[in-house]
Amino acid sequence: MIKTVDIHQEMHEECGVFGVFNHHQAALLTYHGLNALQHRGQEGCGMVSSDGTLLKQFKGEGLVKNVFKKKDVDALKGIHAIGHVRYSTSGGGGINNVQPFLFQSQNGPLGLCHNGNLVNANKLKGYLEQHGSIFQTTSDSEIIAHLLKRQRGSMLTRIKESLIYVEGSFAFLFLLENELYLALDKQGLRPLSIGKVGKSGIVISSETCAIDAVGAKFVRDILPGEVLRISKNGFESVFYSEDRKHQMCMMEYVYFARPDSQIEGINVYQARKACGKVLAEEAPVDADIVIGVPDSGMSSAIGFAEASKLPLELGLIKNKTSDRTFIEPNKLLREQGVALKLSVVKSVIKGKRVVLVDDSIVRGTTIKQLINLIKKAGAKEVHVRITSPEIKYPCFYGVDFSTYDELISANNTPTQMKDLIGADSIFFISIEGLIKGVGRKPGAHCTACYNKEYPTYLYDELKQANKEIK
Amino acid sequence: MIKTVDIHQEMHEECGVFGVFNHHQAALLTYHGLNALQHRGQEGCGMVSSDGTLLKQFKGEGLVKNVFKKKDVDALKGIHAIGHVRYSTSGGGGINNVQPFLFQSQNGPLGLCHNGNLVNANKLKGYLEQHGSIFQTTSDSEIIAHLLKRQRGSMLTRIKESLIYVEGSFAFLFLLENELYLALDKQGLRPLSIGKVGKSGIVISSETCAIDAVGAKFVRDILPGEVLRISKNGFESVFYSEDRKHQMCMMEYVYFARPDSQIEGINVYQARKACGKVLAEEAPVDADIVIGVPDSGMSSAIGFAEASKLPLELGLIKNKTSDRTFIEPNKLLREQGVALKLSVVKSVIKGKRVVLVDDSIVRGTTIKQLINLIKKAGAKEVHVRITSPEIKYPCFYGVDFSTYDELISANNTPTQMKDLIGADSIFFISIEGLIKGVGRKPGAHCTACYNKEYPTYLYDELKQANKEIK
Amino acid sequence: MIKTVDIHQEMHEECGVFGVFNHHQAALLTYHGLNALQHRGQEGCGMVSSDGTLLKQFKGEGLVKNVFKKKDVDALKGIHAIGHVRYSTSGGGGINNVQPFLFQSQNGPLGLCHNGNLVNANKLKGYLEQHGSIFQTTSDSEIIAHLLKRQRGSMLTRIKESLIYVEGSFAFLFLLENELYLALDKQGLRPLSIGKVGKSGIVISSETCAIDAVGAKFVRDILPGEVLRISKNGFESVFYSEDRKHQMCMMEYVYFARPDSQIEGINVYQARKACGKVLAEEAPVDADIVIGVPDSGMSSAIGFAEASKLPLELGLIKNKTSDRTFIEPNKLLREQGVALKLSVVKSVIKGKRVVLVDDSIVRGTTIKQLINLIKKAGAKEVHVRITSPEIKYPCFYGVDFSTYDELISANNTPTQMKDLIGADSIFFISIEGLIKGVGRKPGAHCTACYNKEYPTYLYDELKQANKEIK
Amino acid sequence: MIKTVDIHQEMHEECGVFGVFNHHQAALLTYHGLNALQHRGQEGCGMVSSDGTLLKQFKGEGLVKNVFKKKDVDALKGIHAIGHVRYSTSGGGGINNVQPFLFQSQNGPLGLCHNGNLVNANKLKGYLEQHGSIFQTTSDSEIIAHLLKRQRGSMLTRIKESLIYVEGSFAFLFLLENELYLALDKQGLRPLSIGKVGKSGIVISSETCAIDAVGAKFVRDILPGEVLRISKNGFESVFYSEDRKHQMCMMEYVYFARPDSQIEGINVYQARKACGKVLAEEAPVDADIVIGVPDSGMSSAIGFAEASKLPLELGLIKNKTSDRTFIEPNKLLREQGVALKLSVVKSVIKGKRVVLVDDSIVRGTTIKQLINLIKKAGAKEVHVRITSPEIKYPCFYGVDFSTYDELISANNTPTQMKDLIGADSIFFISIEGLIKGVGRKPGAHCTACYNKEYPTYLYDELKQANKEIK
Repeated sequence: MIKTVDIHQEMHEECGVFGVFNHHQAALLTYHGLNALQHRGQEGCGMVSSDGTLLKQFKGEGLVKNVFKKKDVDALKGIHAIGHVRYSTSGGGGINNVQPFLFQSQNGPLGLCHNGNLVNANKLKGYLEQHGSIFQTTSDSEIIAHLLKRQRGSMLTRIKESLIYVEGSFAFLFLLENELYLALDKQGLRPLSIGKVGKSGIVISSETCAIDAVGAKFVRDILPGEVLRISKNGFESVFYSEDRKHQMCMMEYVYFARPDSQIEGINVYQARKACGKVLAEEAPVDADIVIGVPDSGMSSAIGFAEASKLPLELGLIKNKTSDRTFIEPNKLLREQGVALKLSVVKSVIKGKRVVLVDDSIVRGTTIKQLINLIKKAGAKEVHVRITSPEIKYPCFYGVDFSTYDELISANNTPTQMKDLIGADSIFFISIEGLIKGVGRKPGAHCTACYNKEYPTYLYDELKQANKEIK
Repeated sequence: MIKTVDIHQEMHEECGVFGVFNHHQAALLTYHGLNALQHRGQEGCGMVSSDGTLLKQFKGEGLVKNVFKKKDVDALKGIHAIGHVRYSTSGGGGINNVQPFLFQSQNGPLGLCHNGNLVNANKLKGYLEQHGSIFQTTSDSEIIAHLLKRQRGSMLTRIKESLIYVEGSFAFLFLLENELYLALDKQGLRPLSIGKVGKSGIVISSETCAIDAVGAKFVRDILPGEVLRISKNGFESVFYSEDRKHQMCMMEYVYFARPDSQIEGINVYQARKACGKVLAEEAPVDADIVIGVPDSGMSSAIGFAEASKLPLELGLIKNKTSDRTFIEPNKLLREQGVALKLSVVKSVIKGKRVVLVDDSIVRGTTIKQLINLIKKAGAKEVHVRITSPEIKYPCFYGVDFSTYDELISANNTPTQMKDLIGADSIFFISIEGLIKGVGRKPGAHCTACYNKEYPTYLYDELKQANKEIK
Repeated sequence: MIKTVDIHQEMHEECGVFGVFNHHQAALLTYHGLNALQHRGQEGCGMVSSDGTLLKQFKGEGLVKNVFKKKDVDALKGIHAIGHVRYSTSGGGGINNVQPFLFQSQNGPLGLCHNGNLVNANKLKGYLEQHGSIFQTTSDSEIIAHLLKRQRGSMLTRIKESLIYVEGSFAFLFLLENELYLALDKQGLRPLSIGKVGKSGIVISSETCAIDAVGAKFVRDILPGEVLRISKNGFESVFYSEDRKHQMCMMEYVYFARPDSQIEGINVYQARKACGKVLAEEAPVDADIVIGVPDSGMSSAIGFAEASKLPLELGLIKNKTSDRTFIEPNKLLREQGVALKLSVVKSVIKGKRVVLVDDSIVRGTTIKQLINLIKKAGAKEVHVRITSPEIKYPCFYGVDFSTYDELISANNTPTQMKDLIGADSIFFISIEGLIKGVGRKPGAHCTACYNKEYPTYLYDELKQANKEIK
Repeated sequence: MIKTVDIHQEMHEECGVFGVFNHHQAALLTYHGLNALQHRGQEGCGMVSSDGTLLKQFKGEGLVKNVFKKKDVDALKGIHAIGHVRYSTSGGGGINNVQPFLFQSQNGPLGLCHNGNLVNANKLKGYLEQHGSIFQTTSDSEIIAHLLKRQRGSMLTRIKESLIYVEGSFAFLFLLENELYLALDKQGLRPLSIGKVGKSGIVISSETCAIDAVGAKFVRDILPGEVLRISKNGFESVFYSEDRKHQMCMMEYVYFARPDSQIEGINVYQARKACGKVLAEEAPVDADIVIGVPDSGMSSAIGFAEASKLPLELGLIKNKTSDRTFIEPNKLLREQGVALKLSVVKSVIKGKRVVLVDDSIVRGTTIKQLINLIKKAGAKEVHVRITSPEIKYPCFYGVDFSTYDELISANNTPTQMKDLIGADSIFFISIEGLIKGVGRKPGAHCTACYNKEYPTYLYDELKQANKEIK
């Protein structure tokens, strides 16, 4: 049910973070926590651990289970650890850009990892370089370390004063020898939660599913603008900005998060199923069966089927082979019909009017192939129902959509799209329907990719990169 | 939806076979075909190809996508190929026992692979060794090559005369420079189908899902006792025995085959869903929600929910990490609740009366853990419904159950089992219900593991190994 | 000083064997023994061990130190072991042809390895296949196992009766659960020695250097035609043939064996140095310095310098990079002068008349490049002195020369060769000089590659393959 | 003849550098150049290339031939490149500390590599960190990049002004998009030479052997204190200090450099041989044979034998197996006499009075084992002759001796040492003898490790670390 092996490959969140404070198996817990966050980033992963005096680092490109061998986790022995799964290697640099970063200093080491994306990174880098900073990665996450280095006072003060300069989305983890700091941007664009493990251990995670996965108990979500210091003396919480507003990314509910995660109190699977129900009301259809696109569309398909009283069928079967190590079929084989990522259960579909439910459409290429596959298997009609609104605008907060030009909804009306992809009808849930389905209170979320209401200032560089947006 | 990463790990079929005749990309098609059969064996795989004069071999331990690199498939260039995925490394020997085997001879080479299990292997080996044969593997599949070597006449004759000695289940593929031979045991215990690909190519597969996967068209199933010669001149079909009776393994429908395969005309997914419906009639239950154990129980859960008019929920989420390369949580972490293979969606289950649907119970350890997990998440009741009858007897035809002693149904009544695993009720589909659900005609199947009606003679060694069976 | 990284790459012996009987670290000793024999074969290696009841096998392609990890050696625990290093993968088949072979049988397992080459392999294979044998490798070493299977009586009797059919060179090791058998061909073409290790352990080795390397004490050489049974009751020695004649391969002294080995009582380094002295007497030269081609020509260069009273210089330096994993310089770089395997110490050579001493010339390409290199560095004259006679005929006993056509001495007189390779003079030691230098008694050696006096009958196939030999 | 597989493992130079400017196969030449410098560092290696606009990096731990695959070198396409082989991973950090470093900046990238060691590194780091610099490695080589960042003006000016702060030994290479800068410390402690390749290419190398290896022509050595700018317009040379004095490290001649390198016009092999002759005069001995310790002692052994008119013998044979991948013999095997790195040719040594010549003694453990081995092989006497003076003081300029406490000569007179290692006599060449043998003019070299005359100021930290030095 998890989208780790992504069929779409069109939309990616950059990263998940996990941390453990004061647990004698910190590295092993972090390993298991990162595994549970694997769906948030599959390009690389790493860990920095502390035994109270020394920080150690291990990282690599690929999946958590492949990067870390038992001896590597054992070598990271300690009582605190932070870890990171990364999607993008944007900017190149490969392994250098994989986090957590570890900075050496005569005042002590600093481990750092970051989920999100800074929108004023170029401006900050330019300023810092003019004042003597050297960057070894092309990641925007390195900036915060340089800002920290230039502040004075306690670590908490230095973090607060550094964050004032930073715009965008972030969930930061900072590990020192015996302290762990968290910081969340003032819009709260990305989720970050804490839990308790064992007698006195603390866990931090981008999603609650990883808190569950390591046998910990959920305590609370980190608040927008909050900076939290965790030490042997307990928690110390401050806010780095007075100008806070809660604007959680709606795509976390729609697509990114694991079905068993709770985001700010709302279960992701149930939110998706409820959206399926809303969609069945907003856009009912006279059909024979309901099929969800595995795995991401399954939850909403169940909701759609239930509300529409149509039978749910497993008409599409996902193959296990669609990862990088696999040899892709060449053109000739593809033309012959070698379909590798999804298979159709022909006898289910033949002669049927099918409702095909999925969570989102980015470029539209996958759904087009699917409809073609289903029609070739003998479906009479294919009606597409999507549980996100049309994605018309790029995201600057850590979601790696295809570029503006490639966003099919940026350039086509639903009617045009229906013809392009060969569907008999198509319908997207309304923004209001989505909010109602998910069950969030009004105004507490980011819907910029649907309606261009970006929650932060957009700097010139980003505007330039997307000059098509009028 | 595929059981490749098996949660149960309690029951295994040994092997799947795939072959291509007369296609200029024979090796690449076979690679994709073996991928589609990966669920039938994940311990090792291999291929033998022929370019019309020379046979080449490549094999290794692990998954198809890991064993074969592009250069390996390229090196197997040719127009014919046979391939094999293998579950078991029983008898040890590792890579030596991985198939296909390739035998060199001054009369030409022979490639061989085998899905099934011979019940008179020891007797035959003893005889052959006394007459000078040397075995290099501990696999029973090597026996047929030695029998062939001792016959005279055409290859078709030699195969027919060799098979007379052999008892048990088998689907054999024999590849010569320019001929491909298939043979199926006289009970037809294992599936084997042929299809057409491209202008004049032929494909062979243990399951039709792989025929679809390579863009080929299904032609027909091989018949019990049939020996088929495929050459540039077309097909030549004979039968090696007059004493034929169709007795397809029912566990193929229940558990082994992929949902999108057709076995002797019946779609596996639909058979499973129908069994879920039968089960809902045989053992209705007053409950709130229906949950299937992913992935194998999903099809029947849909059927059960539909027939019982109870809502279907995704209450269990499968993790992606349960393969061999993964570091298992240690005892301490397990006690803390680190649950790696399945996660519960707590908010779905809390306070509910749950029907938990799965396809089979072998040792009972997994279902016990699941029930515990679900109850800890707050379920009020858990009612177990299983779409196979009780598995009370070992299989000698290629299914690697745990031993007789470990079969929980061999030693416990359902009532005893209910208490052992902590369920509130448990019910297994009846043999008649299963046959009705699947939709096969009476008498044309093997149900030995449910009712001890073995379709072949059982030799002393096997009886001894299972002397507990009274 | 060892030729493991061979500069010539023109001549190869196929294989070395090592065994241990009755030592609690049998596998680890064999690992170290095989390392010491690494110069005899670098393509693959393997081991079979016995713990008294069970035989285990491990093998792979590449160097001993790369093939075996500590866990592999540990897994081969037992008290007996045999091992093999292999040069050739002739006949293809890769890993399948790597020895030792392990044959399973209801009468018990058999481990087998072989150093040498059978000259009637094709005839024997044909006979055996007609009588039902199946060969899984293209190695001639598998034949003996099939012959053994067809004999009756004790193992010693079966070995004796099998060897009667076999012609050519061989040193065989046969490992049973608790017995180890050795057999040497009746000409004694290959060396094979035994030693004592620890309190009651026995070691077997192709060369004495490996006996030393594991801290064992040399006991004696195996005799031509001897079959030796080693058991807990001690040694039992028989001869399989009355027609025995001692004809040790002279190339063992000239090229193959390690300088610190003793072959039948004669130290290899001292033999080579003595040949250098003989050569200085047979072909004195008026020159300034003596240079040996590293590493193989160093021993004889020392002898030549000493006898001729000319100064020895290290004028050629061997690079460390000439193995397979290395990226070869492309044509452009080679033309620019990128010289990878040997470097010239220019200031040593400039303006000098150089005597260049090496052990043998096969195709002549290397020596030609070397002379060119030395002349470009400013040498006034280059006089080539070779401590083997001209190699004019192919070897059928396990030495992999280039084919007859490529043997430069088969097709050129020394005078012609001198012009071809650009030397100012060239001289090969005489056969008599070689024998005198080495210090063997007349008639007890094979010199077929120099003078065509093959010690066995040559079968049609071999004659055919070398029809050029008049 | 190269010490790549070091028998001593007691003394290590940290690093070699190589660079190419303006050659269309810059990366491939650098690959081959680094190979020829492999003896200077085997822990890690890397390369940064430029195609005129973009800099790319590749690095790894291990030997050049293992780290770089063909595709990696191909991916580094460009016209300029710099590379590095590294010995030490001191300070930990593994791959992060492997050079060249690549720094990204909005003013353009900078590639950097360094051979040598800075003696005021801690002071400089402390200063830089207080002013906002962040260090990502524990290498002292990163300092120069931070100093550069804080200067203004042309790159040449910035390098000059940065180097004023730096004390110690260094050969720096700085690569920009289209410029290459070299810098050598004002004492000229490490060698650095330039050559010409092809029509207009330039090569840079720590040793001339690598200039030869890529088919380039030696042009000249870089001078102490010189900073050289290489661009498409040719060379521009300046000096960063007026206070220059030539003090080449004598251990380059004695131990580090390859025999075929010329260091400031003197051939290393000939220098070593001449030292052997001087030693024979300074400390003649009545003996039967002369043996050099392979490979490092061979050159001087030839000189010693020639001057003393004693016969040279190859009495010690080096094994090929002494690298990291090899399984070390366990204690039991070692006691049994398993000797892995060197073997004795017993028949050469038995009954003889042996002169054993080597280049240096650091801790004394190896020579002790060797003497024991030689005596066990039957030598009557063993006389040790060493072609470096006694090493009594640590080096702070890039040679990784064992610590002061472990330097056997720091704590023992030759007479005490003779007894400790079991020799019959021992003699070290005098400092004057070494200088005479090598043939350098007086005063132009560093002999601090023999006589404590350090050519730079030693900072507190270093003094502290070696407080034993009185």
